[in-house]
Order: sequence, then structure tokens, then C-alpha cells
Amino acid sequence: MKKTYLMTPGPTPVPPKALLAMAEPIIHHRTPEFMEVFKEVCDLLKYVFQTQGDVITFTSSGTGAMEAAVANLLSPGDKAICVQGGKFGERWTELCKAYGATPIIIDVKWGNAVDPKVIEAELKKDAAIQAVFTTLCETSTGVLTDIKAIAQITKDHNAVLVVDAISGLGAEEIKTDEWGIDCVVSGSQKGLMIPPGLAFISLSKKAWEKVEKSKCPKYYFSLKKAKKAIESTDTPFTPAITLVIGLRETLRTMKAEGLDVVFARHKKLALATREAMKAMGLSLFAPAAPSNGVTAVNVPAGVDGEKLVKHMRDKYGVGIAGGQAELKGKVFRIAHMGYITETDILTTIAVLGMALAEMGYRGQPGVGVEAAEEILLEGRSRGPVEPA
Amino acid sequence: MKKTYLMTPGPTPVPPKALLAMAEPIIHHRTPEFMEVFKEVCDLLKYVFQTQGDVITFTSSGTGAMEAAVANLLSPGDKAICVQGGKFGERWTELCKAYGATPIIIDVKWGNAVDPKVIEAELKKDAAIQAVFTTLCETSTGVLTDIKAIAQITKDHNAVLVVDAISGLGAEEIKTDEWGIDCVVSGSQKGLMIPPGLAFISLSKKAWEKVEKSKCPKYYFSLKKAKKAIESTDTPFTPAITLVIGLRETLRTMKAEGLDVVFARHKKLALATREAMKAMGLSLFAPAAPSNGVTAVNVPAGVDGEKLVKHMRDKYGVGIAGGQAELKGKVFRIAHMGYITETDILTTIAVLGMALAEMGYRGQPGVGVEAAEEILLEGRSRGPVEPA
Repeated sequence: MKKTYLMTPGPTPVPPKALLAMAEPIIHHRTPEFMEVFKEVCDLLKYVFQTQGDVITFTSSGTGAMEAAVANLLSPGDKAICVQGGKFGERWTELCKAYGATPIIIDVKWGNAVDPKVIEAELKKDAAIQAVFTTLCETSTGVLTDIKAIAQITKDHNAVLVVDAISGLGAEEIKTDEWGIDCVVSGSQKGLMIPPGLAFISLSKKAWEKVEKSKCPKYYFSLKKAKKAIESTDTPFTPAITLVIGLRETLRTMKAEGLDVVFARHKKLALATREAMKAMGLSLFAPAAPSNGVTAVNVPAGVDGEKLVKHMRDKYGVGIAGGQAELKGKVFRIAHMGYITETDILTTIAVLGMALAEMGYRGQPGVGVEAAEEILLEGRSRGPVEPA
Repeated sequence: MKKTYLMTPGPTPVPPKALLAMAEPIIHHRTPEFMEVFKEVCDLLKYVFQTQGDVITFTSSGTGAMEAAVANLLSPGDKAICVQGGKFGERWTELCKAYGATPIIIDVKWGNAVDPKVIEAELKKDAAIQAVFTTLCETSTGVLTDIKAIAQITKDHNAVLVVDAISGLGAEEIKTDEWGIDCVVSGSQKGLMIPPGLAFISLSKKAWEKVEKSKCPKYYFSLKKAKKAIESTDTPFTPAITLVIGLRETLRTMKAEGLDVVFARHKKLALATREAMKAMGLSLFAPAAPSNGVTAVNVPAGVDGEKLVKHMRDKYGVGIAGGQAELKGKVFRIAHMGYITETDILTTIAVLGMALAEMGYRGQPGVGVEAAEEILLEGRSRGPVEPA
């Protein structure tokens, strides 16, 4: 007998209420019944994206919406800044190249956040740059980017700011309209708590103007087609009906909880996780710019990182994530986004302590939970805590 | 109190076993557990596609796989035949245009099937034609195309044969390897009995050679990326995990039943539906080339086709489909594909009789069910029947 805990930064656990809504007999998408669902989802997405504009839904993984951004905002030969500080930042560069655009790559050491001034300097050098592609929370490193500061810069330039918020939306503050972000891309299987299969994209007026001029070929990911359809609460192609129905459930809970509370909850879980790691003598991979969605931790010397992940999953049912690409075996990652609660975090930290002890790591297994509890108790029965 | 019957040609009803499998707590896609599921699904897809080659899975609606075919098989400026005999045939033309290819349109009167000789004549005229895009079962008209005959022709030409089998796969015989079809495209929400969100594509050796030469931009729908990933039972991007898990259930039942039995079942339901319509004094929209997946029926004079569909759905819970595009209001369509049974068909025919009577149609409501029963009883307690 084993219980399983999904602590990976996508997919994240799906609330039972959403799972059950998706298990209802399927309905047709061109019915008043589905239109009512989709209308509500579109409205709730605006709330979560913090925008007055339409949020377009594609049936695809998050990458599909990234491709939509590139293929609809650029034309072949266009120059675009791609901030690369992890596996997903690199995807922007690959996408630009696939569509014949010229990426101006800003390489950021993995684990660090881009300095907005570097972006500003590039934009000042070349007024022809059409877009800046960045990442809100880089899933592979756990780094949070200062999107607000970058938006302040792009506002005064020709370029649009495009943010991959696939990991991050619903976990991190991102004020699309207020900060002036031209394009926000996200996916269903992270902060939005639904299985993978839906991708989302919002666009500012400035972005829609670029869409009008774009000469890249597109069809399925055509934003113009999607925009036209959404005007009559429709999608150009058959949507992933069950996922949309599930999404209504999770978005409703987010709205009911309120975004401020949602973000505060994520912040607290992230802090508890980080303090637990430090208390256990572990070091964070991205201490300078940690995100509230996922924490990357350096695998301690003498421990096999890949075996650790496997051991926690196979023996205890706790699924954390290993490192990706150049970080393979070097870090492990604990998600604290979406439908992940205090008890999940405490369980994960407790199990991590046991697993590390079993793998020969010399640390006291219990201290992690203790440190996390200090944070979690804050504001409840106890006063503010000075984390150790 | 009302029971609902989904009798539309996509989405089709999802078996409860698959719904419940999808409602289990979600698992991560990069785990041995999911890889086992995906491996089995890939093998079962080969069985259903009747091919030894890989069947690639995309997270998208079926149109995504159609786009993958165009963007990966062609280059800008290439010529391709597009057979247009309905809404979905036209999609091939639109896709070719979107990617800068030149469509050679073969227009077929809606309700008729293309004459393979017309395709042959075009191919003989121009050896530079790279592809022939056709439709197995045109959902909008219910017409079945003679794919076997077309494949005999394309075999001897440079062009690859690409078949949109989104509607049809699992309902109609399509021997990918044996007939020599270069590329078969399908989707999850029709004969495969899963909610929309997955698309599939198979390719012959001849097709893969064209993929190598293609110069159209692509990323998410790149077949090369997908092929590389599938070699290690993986997908290039996060797959729609729950839909893949559900698909395993429905494909297992298809394998257990056997394709021959599956096709015979569809054939019988289609025949029962058609005979019922005729007995009720209704005429079929595509009498010359009817498919076993969906039957399109002309709306009788004096009856409002759109109101009929609405009435059946709202009063009786039976959801049939109306006409699309130029057939709006002129036909209604009854699906008999996937998880649709004899009892569903009998219910639908009975309700149609009642609804038509309520809308002033002068026919005997009961005769449809009677005619259908004659067909359904065939080979059971009674001998072969001569349909009226």
C-alpha cells in the first residue's frame, strides 16, 4: 500500500473535483451547454491573466502557444531577443530559428535571472528588434525573472514583450495589463491544475498590431482565426472539451480564493521549502532569484541525484523532478505550485530527509520538517519567525 | 429527468472505463509508469492504423496532424492535389495555401465521392505534383472515398497519398500498409472513442523521404522531432497524459474485439440507420457513397433542420448534428461510430420519428425503428432480410 504525491513542476496534481467533472459523459462543443462553460473559462482566464483582453485557448502543450507567439508576431528575417537561462528559454531561440527569424541571444548563467539592463542595452542598439522573448519562471532552474522591470523597458520600444509563463502563471504575480506585458503564454498543467493539453495566450494592442503584419505561415496556431472564433465564444478547431470543463473547476477555485491569497500561499510554501533545504544543509541552485513555483536544490556531494529521485518515487511514492539537460543528476526540483498543499510539502521534506539518510547523506532527517513548520506556523498560533 | 445520447460525428461518447481511467490521479509523463502506457498505445495504434511503421501522436485537434502532413511533406511552391467534396476536404486546400504550396483543386459535388480516374489524370499531367490530399469519410457529407483505388494510382507516381481519416479510422476499413497509403491522419474523438485533444499520423517510407526534403517552417508539429522522441517511447513536448491513458482503454477494447468485428458492427449500424431513414420516407444526402461512420439525411420539405436538431437535443436529450457550411439547415447527421450501440441507434431513430411528427412531418414515426430492427436482427434469430 502506497500513496502517491506528484511534486513535479508540471504536470501538477489535479483536484478531484476537476477530475470528476472531466469524467462526466462528454458533451459536444457546439452546444449551448459547452458555450456556457467556455464563456466562463474565457472570463476566468482574463482574471487569472490579469488582462481585459481576450485570452486565447489552444489544444496543445504549452509549446504550441509559444509557437503561436513566434509565428504570429514575427516575419522571416525579423530580429528578436531571446533570453536564455535554462531549457525553456532556449526554446524561444529554437522557435525563432524554425520560423526564419534572427534570434539575438542573451545568455544568462543557469540559476541566475537576466539583468533587465542588458535587454535595454540591446533594444537601444537596434530599433528593428521586434520582440523580447523571456520566461517568468524557468522550470529547469527555478529562477524567477523580473518581468515588471523588463516591461518598463519594452514599453518605450518597438519590440513587444513576450513572456513564457507556462510555469508560473497562478503561482507568481504577473500583472499583464498593469505592467504592460504584450503577450503572456501559459499551459494547463502547472499553476492552473489541469492535465496537460491546453495552452493559452494573451495579447496587447501593440501585439495584435504585429499579428496583422506577420508573414510567417500558420494555420492551427493562427491567432487571427482564434480571435475571430472567440468573438462568438468558439474555437476554430475542436477543443479539448474535457480539459476545458476541468479548467472551469480549477479557475473557479482560484477566483473564489482570490489571486492575492493564491500568491501568498505559493510564497509561503516556497519559503518553507527553501528554509527546510537550508536547515538540512542543502544549498539552493538559484538562491538569488528563487521562484515561488518550483525550488531547485543542488544534489549534495556523494549522493546520486537520479537515484534519489527514483528512490523517493519507488519507495515512498513521492515524485519530485530531477535536473534537465545540463543539470541532469546535479539538481532535484520540488514543485510547490497549483494543487500542492502544506501537508504535501511537509511529506515531501520528511521523505527527502529519509531518502537522503538512506543514501548516505550525513544530516539530521528531521530538521527540514522543523524548519518548514516554523514558516508554516507563522501568522497562526505563533508570531513571525526568524528562519534559521 | 433526462438521459443524454451523443450521436454526433465527433466528439463521440467515451466509454465509462476510459472516463474513469482518465479520472485517476494524474501521473508524470517521464516515469516508467507512463512510458509503459505510451508504449502500449503506440503498439495498439499500429494495429488500428494497420501499419508496421510508427504512428505519431500530437496533442492537438485532428487539424494539427493535417497541418503536420502539409508542413512536413511539402515545401513552398510545391504542387499538391486537394480533393474537395466537403468542409474537411477544403481544409487541405487552406493548409496548402497557408504554407505557400499550390493546391490543384479537384472539386467534387458535395454528397459524391471523387472519381479516382480524375486524380490519375491530374497526376499524369504533372509529374511534379508532390502529394494527393484526400478524406476517408467526409464528416460534413457522410461520403466515403475509395482510398484503396486512389492508393493503387498514387503508388506509381511521385506524389504521396495523404488521407484525412479523422472521421473514419476505426469505423471504416483502411489498410495503410497493404493498400500503400503514405500518410494517414486521425484524431481521438471519433472512432477511437476518446475526448478531443490527440491527433495521430502515420507515414510510409516514401513519405519520410519527403519529410527529409521539406522546407516549410515547423516546430511543434515537426515530424522529425516526434520521430526521434518516439524511438525512446517519448514525445518532444508534454503530451495530453490523461487522454493517452484513456486511449489505452479504448484501443484495448478494439484489439480485443478485433478490427474485422469492429468494422462489421459499424457497417450494420450504418445500414440500419440508412434503412430506417428510407422507411421513414427520408432521403439520404449521399446515397451513392455512404460511409459507415456517419449518415447525412436530407431535411424533409416543411421541416426546419436547425430546429429539428435543437428539438431532439432539448426535449429528448438526443444530440444529432446539423449541416455544416453550405449544408446548414439542409441535412442532419446521425453518427454510428465508436462507442455507439444498437440501442443508441434505435433510440435515436425512435426519437427522430417523434420529433419529426411533432414538427409536422407526415410519416409514421414507428416505421424507422421497424426497418432498423430488421437489419439488426439479421444473422440472429432471423434469416437475412430484404430491406424494404
